[in-house]
Amino acid sequence: MTVESTVGASGGALPKSVRIVEVGPRDGLQNEKGLVPLAAKVALIERLVAAGLRTIEAGSFVAPRWVPQMADTDRVVAQFRSTLDVEMPVLVPNLKGLELAKAAGARTVAIFAAATESFARANLNAPRAESIARFAEVAAGARAHGMRVRGYVSCAVHCPYEGWVEPGVAAELAAALTEMGCYEVSMCDTTGAASPGRARAMAAATIAAIPLEQVAVHFHDTFGQALVNTLTCLELGISVVDSSVSGLGGCPYSPGAAGNLATEDLVYMLEGLGIETGVDLEALVEAGRQISGVLGRTPASRTALAMAGRRTTTCNAPLSN
Amino acid sequence: MTVESTVGASGGALPKSVRIVEVGPRDGLQNEKGLVPLAAKVALIERLVAAGLRTIEAGSFVAPRWVPQMADTDRVVAQFRSTLDVEMPVLVPNLKGLELAKAAGARTVAIFAAATESFARANLNAPRAESIARFAEVAAGARAHGMRVRGYVSCAVHCPYEGWVEPGVAAELAAALTEMGCYEVSMCDTTGAASPGRARAMAAATIAAIPLEQVAVHFHDTFGQALVNTLTCLELGISVVDSSVSGLGGCPYSPGAAGNLATEDLVYMLEGLGIETGVDLEALVEAGRQISGVLGRTPASRTALAMAGRRTTTCNAPLSN
Repeated sequence: MTVESTVGASGGALPKSVRIVEVGPRDGLQNEKGLVPLAAKVALIERLVAAGLRTIEAGSFVAPRWVPQMADTDRVVAQFRSTLDVEMPVLVPNLKGLELAKAAGARTVAIFAAATESFARANLNAPRAESIARFAEVAAGARAHGMRVRGYVSCAVHCPYEGWVEPGVAAELAAALTEMGCYEVSMCDTTGAASPGRARAMAAATIAAIPLEQVAVHFHDTFGQALVNTLTCLELGISVVDSSVSGLGGCPYSPGAAGNLATEDLVYMLEGLGIETGVDLEALVEAGRQISGVLGRTPASRTALAMAGRRTTTCNAPLSN
Repeated sequence: MTVESTVGASGGALPKSVRIVEVGPRDGLQNEKGLVPLAAKVALIERLVAAGLRTIEAGSFVAPRWVPQMADTDRVVAQFRSTLDVEMPVLVPNLKGLELAKAAGARTVAIFAAATESFARANLNAPRAESIARFAEVAAGARAHGMRVRGYVSCAVHCPYEGWVEPGVAAELAAALTEMGCYEVSMCDTTGAASPGRARAMAAATIAAIPLEQVAVHFHDTFGQALVNTLTCLELGISVVDSSVSGLGGCPYSPGAAGNLATEDLVYMLEGLGIETGVDLEALVEAGRQISGVLGRTPASRTALAMAGRRTTTCNAPLSN
């Protein structure tokens, strides 16, 4: 399908290009109950690379009993060791994970801190301050080994236990992560509760705390707000966006739960705005179709569904408007 | 669920309140294959009224063989004749339809013109100029009877036959409809192909052609862009938005086709931005749940799914971000 270039930008000063961080192979798949075969993960990443994505989160080095789906991350990383033009961060929760990442040949790791005390204890099994100290060690160890380090701030807008999060608190944590040496910090709306006003406030506080070019955003589509929140952040000049092919990432414990922002819907919007991504939308949709087939589910991306069904024509029923 | 007030508006000058035009009972249901019982339609409208909606498109007066689902619109209208504080437009394609609307006691009718020649011929069975002349007659007849007239511009951004539509062409048609006496013109992205740049260009051209307060927007979620397009138009000061409870309105001939912007997702965003709607989100979600049950389908609204499952808490799986 051809999407012509923009006919006028949105309100703010939009970036000329956006780098998409595809998180489907990790954030998207990690909660799948049925183990996804290694070959399917490798094929997914190969298709994402072929579609033009140049940052792809490949997996995580955590205890297999904790996240069994990611137990083969070493083999995923090994498979792409020679793919030098694609950055493939892997999540590491601690020094042991870092050692595994090093052994596998990973060049980039990601660390993830929580903005609230309750979420740190629930998600990271440690008090907030202790988890931050632990990540500082991991970051130092990674950098000493010549690895790049990406940071995440979970609950940057809303916490499932504590409610709305002060933008300044999230921004301060972003600053701590950059001080540890993170080249980029992804601000995550973990619950998907943000709407554009809160997304903008969080992004503005973050930009005030760390350099604009180091800020990434990561929205979930729980309330259908992921894309509109993303545009709001782009209008502030942010140009790095996390998303997941086919909107993978729903929670297995909440049937019907919405996952990450769908990469296809993001690319469709950016193309329409004349913003470069380097991604081939047709090839991306095909990558999503293939992994959705493996998982036995319908893509959560509207664009994927539209393009799969060639639903660019309207309904033939009379009185359509 | 409590959604706190805004913490800062988006980029543009957002309106303080938005009037939502709920189109579920007409645009949402018209293409359903299985006939929806009159009692279910009446119950839906009653629940929408109870939820605080004050403009509800109730049905259409067209030949029953053309749109069998709307054959009982006279009885729907009769049921709400004494509900004086709710505006309930009914679609009328011609003078015969207008007579039926008058006989039923409708106080507001809607007419719908197409921006492109091809769509006028396909959807209205008449050349574009002829259909416009026909609607001028209908509007004059309605106003002579003391009725209010709402206008629609179909294919205001994109036509399934002719591709992208010049914003000026859509705006000119909006001007023609206001000259006929329409109190408001709803600019429809019929195929759902618009992304925010094109939505903004269309809206800006329309605002230049007719008074701001007479402009409404109507987006479909085919490519997942309905909400972000809507916010882009609100930033231009537009304050009337069409939407459909549960995102009803998918095309029966295209399984999986996305419908209208879901009212629940719209209300969630507006509440978060501190923009008044007068709508109770919990009651709205319940109205959507009930009609979705009648239709035997899952709501297309993410907010409806989130609130139904109380999925405001994040996934319990470790490493959520």
